[in-house]
Amino acid sequence: MSEQNRRLVLAERPSGLVDETTTRLEHEDLPELQDGEALVRVRYLSIDPTIRTWMDDAPGYLPPIGVDEVIRGGGIGEVLESRCEAYEQGQLLFGMTGWQEYVVADAGARTMQALPPGVHPTKALGVLGITGMTAYFGMTDVARVKEGDVVVISGAAGATGSTAGQIAKIKGAAKVVGIAGGPEKCAWIVDELGFDEAIDYKNEKVAARLREACPAGIDLYFDNVGGSILNDCLGHLAMRGRVALCGAISSYNSDGPPPGPSNYINLLIKRGRMEGFLILDYFDRFPAAQAEMAGWLAEGKIKSAEHVVEGLESAPEALNLLFSGGNTGKVMVKL
Amino acid sequence: MSEQNRRLVLAERPSGLVDETTTRLEHEDLPELQDGEALVRVRYLSIDPTIRTWMDDAPGYLPPIGVDEVIRGGGIGEVLESRCEAYEQGQLLFGMTGWQEYVVADAGARTMQALPPGVHPTKALGVLGITGMTAYFGMTDVARVKEGDVVVISGAAGATGSTAGQIAKIKGAAKVVGIAGGPEKCAWIVDELGFDEAIDYKNEKVAARLREACPAGIDLYFDNVGGSILNDCLGHLAMRGRVALCGAISSYNSDGPPPGPSNYINLLIKRGRMEGFLILDYFDRFPAAQAEMAGWLAEGKIKSAEHVVEGLESAPEALNLLFSGGNTGKVMVKL
Repeated sequence: MSEQNRRLVLAERPSGLVDETTTRLEHEDLPELQDGEALVRVRYLSIDPTIRTWMDDAPGYLPPIGVDEVIRGGGIGEVLESRCEAYEQGQLLFGMTGWQEYVVADAGARTMQALPPGVHPTKALGVLGITGMTAYFGMTDVARVKEGDVVVISGAAGATGSTAGQIAKIKGAAKVVGIAGGPEKCAWIVDELGFDEAIDYKNEKVAARLREACPAGIDLYFDNVGGSILNDCLGHLAMRGRVALCGAISSYNSDGPPPGPSNYINLLIKRGRMEGFLILDYFDRFPAAQAEMAGWLAEGKIKSAEHVVEGLESAPEALNLLFSGGNTGKVMVKL
Repeated sequence: MSEQNRRLVLAERPSGLVDETTTRLEHEDLPELQDGEALVRVRYLSIDPTIRTWMDDAPGYLPPIGVDEVIRGGGIGEVLESRCEAYEQGQLLFGMTGWQEYVVADAGARTMQALPPGVHPTKALGVLGITGMTAYFGMTDVARVKEGDVVVISGAAGATGSTAGQIAKIKGAAKVVGIAGGPEKCAWIVDELGFDEAIDYKNEKVAARLREACPAGIDLYFDNVGGSILNDCLGHLAMRGRVALCGAISSYNSDGPPPGPSNYINLLIKRGRMEGFLILDYFDRFPAAQAEMAGWLAEGKIKSAEHVVEGLESAPEALNLLFSGGNTGKVMVKL
């Protein structure tokens, strides 16, 4: 086979945002396909904040990406050639493709899964994929949203936050407040997605606005950002308030540990609960959740936004968009 | 009635430890007893860390003690005279006596409760009282100790921590590690109470010792102290580790909020849970728990220590013992 694979490998570990020295473009010959394998042409890369954490040489829920290894990440591709029954030519698969143009799917290890029929690839990466499922299980299973809850969500214009807020409304939350950066995002989550209120953390004092928006306190806080916003929300918990820890995007580019939330002590005073989760633990429950989510999409109860960037070489700057707040909705790279 | 009540009122709010300017001794005539009331001679005061938090003008689970008001606190007393059916002369009662020699019990408001028959007053304040019940419900209900757990307890030579560790052993924990200050306390919890291991936070590096003592991580951390020890334990959680927040004694004398635990992010990586509780919420479940605890006492499975200080005027320095680590076991003042 004369085609070559182009891939981005980790050239050196970044300090802060990734830049042109972080990744290196490499070419390699495509491997000889073995029995039980399929060759997949990657079509979309899923750009997620967690990728940045894997670039650090620090303990996490997965090992760090090694220097000179391809950047780890999810994506969607099309089967070009198959030497197994599990995968058919022309089929769309999702899985950990990495930042590259071609990947070999291994039927035995089930490294890639077929997309549900009729689902567009961008939806499969977004609202019906890892980010949507993160919102779904975080809101329902970890934070246990219930009727009448006053809900606050940070990163509310991001892929996970925007979906989490809409799920809270569907599940009967009395009020859903989103925290986002800038007036456009704030207008979008209220006018388009149906959040009840928005707090613009770039232009408003979050703690004071939380007291206004949630006079009786916060029953459920879905945290995507960590840092001072987590602390402000902990400081304004209602009795038996719950905090679902989904991410800490404010700290992923900082050296050393983030500052801890001194208001954690309010968990004691308010008999609160703070719990972390990772979507990895919920894979076996995806089908039922995806079916429910697909129904909401069809009924127009859930809206999703996608922010598509073109070309493999754009992946590093697409990742940075997540930290500069340059995106609205799910960031992906089209190859 | 010619007797006078002597009481300690809050003269001024302390900064740091209480001192001679914090409280003021006052004399007052005993009130005329009304129908439905009983006059109680206070015999023991329960000295608890939370009393210090009530002296600050800061929001909490109860309002601050007002300046010129009697210091709030639990205690045990004997009925001297009764004008109601609920209380009988000579009966021992427990409840919020305050730091004073006499208190009026109100049958309608049930401000004081009869001691279970046969229970010595110091046990009723300690292992069978609020502190023992805090250990019981924190360990069983909040942290949900189970067989095979690796358990770490801070403030382990204190009244609550020492009991919590013994309950963990009874409930089948694989290993119980106590963190306490100084070699005497560390020896006591291991040799007398049956903890498996002790870490002397005054003379050892807690994080390094936790890694040694709990090589596979901490399943359950019962936190009485907050601060750096909470942070160290969060940093060494096992998968799905639980943290029960019982107190934050390291911060009660500091101005402003305590530093937050930057390792809270490990709750996300390890899918952990951190939950606060207050014993106030468990009053209706005390009888069953006290019966179980009384059984363990009778069988010698639970040992308790009491640190008794004499005289009303000693109450402020008794409170300070909790923060200097000068006590082993339950601190109380005998009047």
